[in-house]
Amino acid sequence: MATGTGTAMDRPSGAQRIYNFGAGPATMPVEVLERAQAELVNWHQAGLSVMEMSHRGTEFVAIAAQAEAKLRKLLAVPATHEVLFLQGGATLQFAGVPMNLLRGKKKADYVNTGEWSKKAISEAKKFCEVNVAASSEDRNFTYAPKQSTWKLSKDAAYVHYCSNETIGGVEFHWTPETGDVPLVADMSSHILSKPLDVSKYGLIYAGAQKNIGPAGLVLVIARADLLGEVVAGTPNVMNYKLQSDADSMLNTPPTFSVYLAGLTFDWLLARGGLEGIAKVNAHKAALLYDYLDGQDFYSNPVDREDRSLMNVPFRLRDDKHDAKFLELAEARGLSQLKGHRSVGGMRASIYNAMPVEGVEALVAFMQEFARAHA
Amino acid sequence: MATGTGTAMDRPSGAQRIYNFGAGPATMPVEVLERAQAELVNWHQAGLSVMEMSHRGTEFVAIAAQAEAKLRKLLAVPATHEVLFLQGGATLQFAGVPMNLLRGKKKADYVNTGEWSKKAISEAKKFCEVNVAASSEDRNFTYAPKQSTWKLSKDAAYVHYCSNETIGGVEFHWTPETGDVPLVADMSSHILSKPLDVSKYGLIYAGAQKNIGPAGLVLVIARADLLGEVVAGTPNVMNYKLQSDADSMLNTPPTFSVYLAGLTFDWLLARGGLEGIAKVNAHKAALLYDYLDGQDFYSNPVDREDRSLMNVPFRLRDDKHDAKFLELAEARGLSQLKGHRSVGGMRASIYNAMPVEGVEALVAFMQEFARAHA
Repeated sequence: MATGTGTAMDRPSGAQRIYNFGAGPATMPVEVLERAQAELVNWHQAGLSVMEMSHRGTEFVAIAAQAEAKLRKLLAVPATHEVLFLQGGATLQFAGVPMNLLRGKKKADYVNTGEWSKKAISEAKKFCEVNVAASSEDRNFTYAPKQSTWKLSKDAAYVHYCSNETIGGVEFHWTPETGDVPLVADMSSHILSKPLDVSKYGLIYAGAQKNIGPAGLVLVIARADLLGEVVAGTPNVMNYKLQSDADSMLNTPPTFSVYLAGLTFDWLLARGGLEGIAKVNAHKAALLYDYLDGQDFYSNPVDREDRSLMNVPFRLRDDKHDAKFLELAEARGLSQLKGHRSVGGMRASIYNAMPVEGVEALVAFMQEFARAHA
Repeated sequence: MATGTGTAMDRPSGAQRIYNFGAGPATMPVEVLERAQAELVNWHQAGLSVMEMSHRGTEFVAIAAQAEAKLRKLLAVPATHEVLFLQGGATLQFAGVPMNLLRGKKKADYVNTGEWSKKAISEAKKFCEVNVAASSEDRNFTYAPKQSTWKLSKDAAYVHYCSNETIGGVEFHWTPETGDVPLVADMSSHILSKPLDVSKYGLIYAGAQKNIGPAGLVLVIARADLLGEVVAGTPNVMNYKLQSDADSMLNTPPTFSVYLAGLTFDWLLARGGLEGIAKVNAHKAALLYDYLDGQDFYSNPVDREDRSLMNVPFRLRDDKHDAKFLELAEARGLSQLKGHRSVGGMRASIYNAMPVEGVEALVAFMQEFARAHA
């Protein structure tokens, strides 16, 4: 799919890498990949790969501790919150959240803003009654329901929402207010894209394969005082309290993925942390949305104030041009622009690691294609 | 821990890598690491890393399909059995096995041969009554209980055993007979070390971080007709039937780990498959055990017929020499020889990727150390 047929001149420089607009697993910073490559067979002259290190050895324990410290610095995670590096992706946490946060209660509130919300709701129903407190299904998931429309339960164990819907391209640019009921967010596709007030959340989780590192790692940040009581039948490795007590090493962690996450955190810190990357992300998104809004060959269906800065879906005026658009884009080294099958059209995911030049190249191509096919 | 201080001359050749005798994550074939290194930033001139590929894209789908095909070839997996590449390690499967295999029954038989058996039993008790059909606890887990001593239940959903205990160094060199009751094995630390008759098993599982690849991947091979009914509250990603129907991609798989597993399978096929590697493994184990049996400075506690060809625990006659032994070994590039805290002493894990030269170097060092400290 990503094997472009363009010439070297068409491609981004640097080992002729493509611009990969895939939604995840997604493009990673080339500097991170190059450092991982240099260290792969013999890490820091220690005579072995990170992959070969014992997770109980001093070297890997330091790698993991530094990864956590860097993440805590980036997100300014307060001491009240535990940071866990686990396996199973966000999808396993769809079960992990109710397993760990119901704490004897029978109900949880969920906001439904698209495909990932629906999956979280479906999994939660195995463990409790789900109250859908708000939904944007009435307008095909093209907006974030305003807080004033939310119908929260008084007896909910927690309130769950997906703060950036990867498929629909809808992002919450505000933090919901849920009073004493813990707020839980699936932030898989926009975590680390901008500053975040972690203290407002009971629990945050995020699959790594967008802004953190390779697939196979999932981040959980949870208020420590919420942890400890789990639903009967919760596997030990899904028990956040046990994992927290064991520094995420109740079982063997995905060591190489944790190491790569640490390299990505270094990369972010070197770019001014989340404030620095947020400026770049805002600039990239503006390039694309401003172009989309200034013509009528392409369109984005999302309410302006709720548009995602990470995932930008768009449609061509006539979908008969879709195949040609994708073919020519691929040849230009602009890869994985096909939209999710549930919404059709195109989608450009422009995560932290997508350089500004990639978005500029995409907009230039879109202009050229529109002129030729209008 | 693994940062040896020996000179280059003391070390194995090839980028001065150490000989890593750790139990897992463990040494990997240097040829696999070098190929992964070469391909890391730009795989096959496709312009991206394997880590960055969509798991739904043609390239990664082919990588995953080839990994499965190679594994099926190596193990001669019959068409009756599904092959799954999942997350969460063997430890998550301690829960996954009862969740998927109880099929409405209330009891399962477990054989207790050491630390990993005990963990599997403890997790299974969350889901069913566990009958410990046999145990070697009476002699501190230094043997594999003979089949004639097993007290199997008539109404067990399955019979579970750990076919190689990594910590105790005990290996079953025979396949238990359980009639119509499905046989389940945790083969984490010796899978792919020798030919195996998969047809005798209802389910086999194995964490990758010994003979398959990096931590964060777990292999499950299951008889298809046993799958489909799960315990209430089983997360979707732990439902083997759902994963099987989705080619292990119900959620985003640990893509880079699957790719590395495929490279390891290539490496094994190039070495004559499991028959080829079994000969090398038998030779390596004989080098070490023959030496251990021919002197009295070191000793191995396991019954001869049950000794593991992968994990070789041994003690020094006087443990006052332990620290010096480890220090000098480390300086020689012989790393991670410290035994598990629950048994003490030393342990040499000599998985597929440990070259014969590594075992020869270890035996030479042990002889030298014994002469100096006898």
